[in-house]
Amino acid sequence: METLTAAVLVVGNEVLSGKRADQNGPCAIRTLRDRGIRLDALLTLPDRLEIISEAVARERARVDWLFTAGGVGPTHDDVTLPAVAHALERPLVRHERLVENIRRWHQRRGGTPTEAALHMADVPQGTRLIGDPTFPVMAVENVVMLPGPPEFFRVQLEAFTAVLQSPPFRAASIFLALGEDHFAAALDLVARAHPDVDIGSYPRFDEADHRVEVTFEAKDASRVEVALRAFLAALPDGAVVRRHGP
Amino acid sequence: METLTAAVLVVGNEVLSGKRADQNGPCAIRTLRDRGIRLDALLTLPDRLEIISEAVARERARVDWLFTAGGVGPTHDDVTLPAVAHALERPLVRHERLVENIRRWHQRRGGTPTEAALHMADVPQGTRLIGDPTFPVMAVENVVMLPGPPEFFRVQLEAFTAVLQSPPFRAASIFLALGEDHFAAALDLVARAHPDVDIGSYPRFDEADHRVEVTFEAKDASRVEVALRAFLAALPDGAVVRRHGP
Repeated sequence: METLTAAVLVVGNEVLSGKRADQNGPCAIRTLRDRGIRLDALLTLPDRLEIISEAVARERARVDWLFTAGGVGPTHDDVTLPAVAHALERPLVRHERLVENIRRWHQRRGGTPTEAALHMADVPQGTRLIGDPTFPVMAVENVVMLPGPPEFFRVQLEAFTAVLQSPPFRAASIFLALGEDHFAAALDLVARAHPDVDIGSYPRFDEADHRVEVTFEAKDASRVEVALRAFLAALPDGAVVRRHGP
Repeated sequence: METLTAAVLVVGNEVLSGKRADQNGPCAIRTLRDRGIRLDALLTLPDRLEIISEAVARERARVDWLFTAGGVGPTHDDVTLPAVAHALERPLVRHERLVENIRRWHQRRGGTPTEAALHMADVPQGTRLIGDPTFPVMAVENVVMLPGPPEFFRVQLEAFTAVLQSPPFRAASIFLALGEDHFAAALDLVARAHPDVDIGSYPRFDEADHRVEVTFEAKDASRVEVALRAFLAALPDGAVVRRHGP
């Protein structure tokens, strides 16, 4: 089955320096998961144009959609739009509809926009404005440039991904009383025989009722079941504490 | 002043797929900050050898220390050690001291290690074992390979970085009643005139007492103060709600 893929690039000195806890990364993980979109990379990088530009060029080539978070405001540390323009080898151009939005926003507050405010309308040439006309999502090629404030990021990510139809992930887990080293060889064989099923093994070292959770995941529940049964068949009696799903 | 730099690479399908909330990234942010080490990138990537290998080669060239989190267990999804070996163009070799540790661990539990367990002793050639002899930190060149379980990750990261002396960061904040567009041009001038001071501007859109927090940060508190004063001098009366630090 088709699986859409995505990467997320959080532009944020404030996250890397511990001034703000990142809310956009966890929000993207949840939202993309709910949409059946596979997240292949979550990168938090500093507000440096050349670093963001290089990451955009590299990551967008590997996935269907690259989402950036933050760096789209009017101050010197807002480098995402020029970085995306540079990565796509497009000029920055002033977008008339965005200028109109900025003017109207300031008019409602009884003022006129500064040049710095209008600078937020300078976007990579060819940028599409999607959805809500007063607060549109900005996308160019497969790069979607989302705002940094978490309440705006969430709204725009949910709106943009609502129309990306991808079948849901189907997952199952087995909880085991064995340590990983006692089934690693068997699980490796199962993983090789079922390359279409993502299989993960997560040990824990506390007082839980199990020592390892082994997860099986695919878009096709029947493939999950086949891989899971193959693994169960290779386990000794008494190894399984419980199972969950699909 | 010298600033040590670091990048952190979380190896984790379980994080990207939303099965586990990442605890190691936030722990690394806090710990490195406390040590005065600047975190330049936090990457969460899937358990795929070629992707990890490429990221290790790229990121370690930009920073003093690259820390990896996870992927060092005995199962098929543990690809960090071979990925680091590949990135450094070193063979994987079985490390006798690690073999001894694994044997002893199993002996204490009345068993002998499986081949899968011993496989955890296969590390990039030249790997150094640092600190606690029964649970050493593994490092090769400037790559430090830390375990994924958060309780182990934290202990090893704290132990390894305890000896990396770097002066603490000195930070100050100004909380403003103005929107960003009203001071963006002035702040841009201050940022250009003080390239040794990291300046960030963080708007908020809720009912807080301020609209923007502007942060100034450097290793030298006097440089923070100089940049902060230059910005204050450019602000209109009544713009500042309060300030904090340095």
